[in-house]
Amino acid sequence: MDIAAQVEAKARAAKEASRALALAPTRTKNEALSQMARGLEEKAATILEANRGDLDRARAKGFTRAFVDRLTLTDDRIEEMAAGLRQVAALADPVGDVVETWRRPSGLEISRVRVPLGVIGFIYESRPNVTADAAGLCLKSGNAVVLRGGSEALESNSLIAQLLAKSAEKAGLPADVIQHVDTPDRAAVLALLTLDRYVDLIIPRGGEEFVRLVNERSTVPVLKHDKGLCHVFVDESADLEMAVAIAVNAKAHRVSVCNAMETLLVHAAVAPRFLPVAAARLAEAGVELRGDERTRALVPGARAAQEADWDTEYLDYILAVKVVDDLDEAVTHIRRHGSGLAEAIVTADLRSARRFTREVDAAAVLVNASTRLVDGAQFGMGAEMGISTSRLHARGPVGVRELTTTKFVVLGDGQIRE
Amino acid sequence: MDIAAQVEAKARAAKEASRALALAPTRTKNEALSQMARGLEEKAATILEANRGDLDRARAKGFTRAFVDRLTLTDDRIEEMAAGLRQVAALADPVGDVVETWRRPSGLEISRVRVPLGVIGFIYESRPNVTADAAGLCLKSGNAVVLRGGSEALESNSLIAQLLAKSAEKAGLPADVIQHVDTPDRAAVLALLTLDRYVDLIIPRGGEEFVRLVNERSTVPVLKHDKGLCHVFVDESADLEMAVAIAVNAKAHRVSVCNAMETLLVHAAVAPRFLPVAAARLAEAGVELRGDERTRALVPGARAAQEADWDTEYLDYILAVKVVDDLDEAVTHIRRHGSGLAEAIVTADLRSARRFTREVDAAAVLVNASTRLVDGAQFGMGAEMGISTSRLHARGPVGVRELTTTKFVVLGDGQIRE
Repeated sequence: MDIAAQVEAKARAAKEASRALALAPTRTKNEALSQMARGLEEKAATILEANRGDLDRARAKGFTRAFVDRLTLTDDRIEEMAAGLRQVAALADPVGDVVETWRRPSGLEISRVRVPLGVIGFIYESRPNVTADAAGLCLKSGNAVVLRGGSEALESNSLIAQLLAKSAEKAGLPADVIQHVDTPDRAAVLALLTLDRYVDLIIPRGGEEFVRLVNERSTVPVLKHDKGLCHVFVDESADLEMAVAIAVNAKAHRVSVCNAMETLLVHAAVAPRFLPVAAARLAEAGVELRGDERTRALVPGARAAQEADWDTEYLDYILAVKVVDDLDEAVTHIRRHGSGLAEAIVTADLRSARRFTREVDAAAVLVNASTRLVDGAQFGMGAEMGISTSRLHARGPVGVRELTTTKFVVLGDGQIRE
Repeated sequence: MDIAAQVEAKARAAKEASRALALAPTRTKNEALSQMARGLEEKAATILEANRGDLDRARAKGFTRAFVDRLTLTDDRIEEMAAGLRQVAALADPVGDVVETWRRPSGLEISRVRVPLGVIGFIYESRPNVTADAAGLCLKSGNAVVLRGGSEALESNSLIAQLLAKSAEKAGLPADVIQHVDTPDRAAVLALLTLDRYVDLIIPRGGEEFVRLVNERSTVPVLKHDKGLCHVFVDESADLEMAVAIAVNAKAHRVSVCNAMETLLVHAAVAPRFLPVAAARLAEAGVELRGDERTRALVPGARAAQEADWDTEYLDYILAVKVVDDLDEAVTHIRRHGSGLAEAIVTADLRSARRFTREVDAAAVLVNASTRLVDGAQFGMGAEMGISTSRLHARGPVGVRELTTTKFVVLGDGQIRE
């Protein structure tokens, strides 16, 4: 069988199996999630052995230490995967929720009811723990999943997916609801993108270029999780102590994630008081600054920002800093350079807060809070598949509810169209 | 300028203008809709003249009478277009609606607020009245629109769009929020599909092949309005008089629309009592039957259905009829042949109703009501851009609310991520 045919067979099997899963009661899905957690724990030694194979190959290929670290599983990480599945079991089941109900003058009763999307194709980077997280969220929301992790984690992912599928079967669900594409070839990904007969949604995680390729090639709808170029704007009226704490947290809490701040915008009126303090605190956290001229006049140690810096997602201990004349300039800068993920203002002024939240267009706009809080768990939505910067369907954290669609259920007693 | 560059210029102008429209107050948008209605009325004579140009060319090219009829504008039809715009003005404005709000233990207050999608690319068939309907719905929901109607209506559409844009300007909105692609070349459509920098959603209306082409070529998300292959299942326990009325309405009320019934499924236990009566009533309404063997044993006049009939969207006075053994066979048939738009059961049995609404996967499932009721206006959602058979974002009638997305607005007092 060629690669495309292999992937098609998996997607078709997932579609077939998704029907039983869509109708499965919550308790069956939760039992499957428990079995999946137990399955990982019981086979931890085998998983670590498979992972060692992936690690040996990655080291032989000369991957960076950071990359190898992300690829590495340990007993603790396996325990975290199991705990994650149990947390997903504890989430409310969105399937069957009645979103709204109304009655027409004719007596017709119309409801919108949540149902699973069907089959989700999930393409992700080389962290084997993501395999369990994604399989759990898809199963809880009643969706079959076709997983395709980074090829460097192939042996680990393939084994984990197999174990999860077998465990789900113990709870009475078809094993085919969890599929893994274990062909390292990129052709397998491209094949998956055209299987709109069987796959209802593609979620790609990875670099900007990769997500663009997926979007261009896919005939299946795509929920994008791409670039995160987030700003914090320190307004004239900001509580400057709060602004420093938010800036340091937004930049340095974890630099490699999409909701980290990449550019700090500072109102000219407070820049002289704010920037020297903020720069010192950021330096303590290991952050290097790239500033415009006005910033450098206040923070002599900052390197000169180039035009390209305003468009760079560093994902590193680097921060671009710009002094702006007012809220308008901040909003215009964000409009031009932001990626529409998370944008924050620090302000004590109600009018500024209202203008910023209205005029800035992003999945999340925050007032007096760190961009790092834009996250499913932090928002109280449970675990997430990622943060969507798409405008359609789901914008922001994608949790179990965002993996559902709705159908209209219409109850009548003989109504016809006049 | 080549065609692609022309289309790009329009899309870019629409995006630019969409920002002001997104923030426009409801009263400004409603005033624009009134002006648009008045603009059409005042220029009715000029519109009819442009339309005569289109009609002359269509007749010269030998288009069918039905086609020319759909293309024809009259004073009455222009009045209907104006009335439609005034109805859209009367609809509630979805923009700014707070969908939900909750508070986190940290004190963070999180809301989801409706905002416009941005720019909508609408590609539609040759009915000039659709130009006004679509422009009105997009404007009310705060979206700019790039219109591309059937090339046979080019002169009419181009003038109508111009008039609408000028009228919107009178209310203080940028005229660029309503764009019309007036290049008859198909290349213009293909160019529009790749402008994901400026266009946020493509809604194609047209035949199955056309919608498939759009879906394959588009890098912009697509909301599909394709095939409608709807079934009515008459269950064992059905009130047969009700079942006849629903069947006749679902088939013959209007045959050329996507929510018309194409296949009637009848439980074997009631077929002998139901089918002869239904067939007679359908024959009175001008409907020709294509039945399976069991149907033909009861309705000798019916032609023999071929396998292809179960997959044919006739859009005509033709109905496929099949006798099934039970609900399971009906559900299986619908799963195999339905297009996921509207599916109905006629039954007096609660268990059958619950099973049918759970197990049949469609944008709308109906109990004891005609499939023809699946429609924005009938559902009380106001006018619609069409009925979506996509699973993502909007499933079923697409009204003003479905033309919006949401953003998270997060209010804090210094919260950071621990």
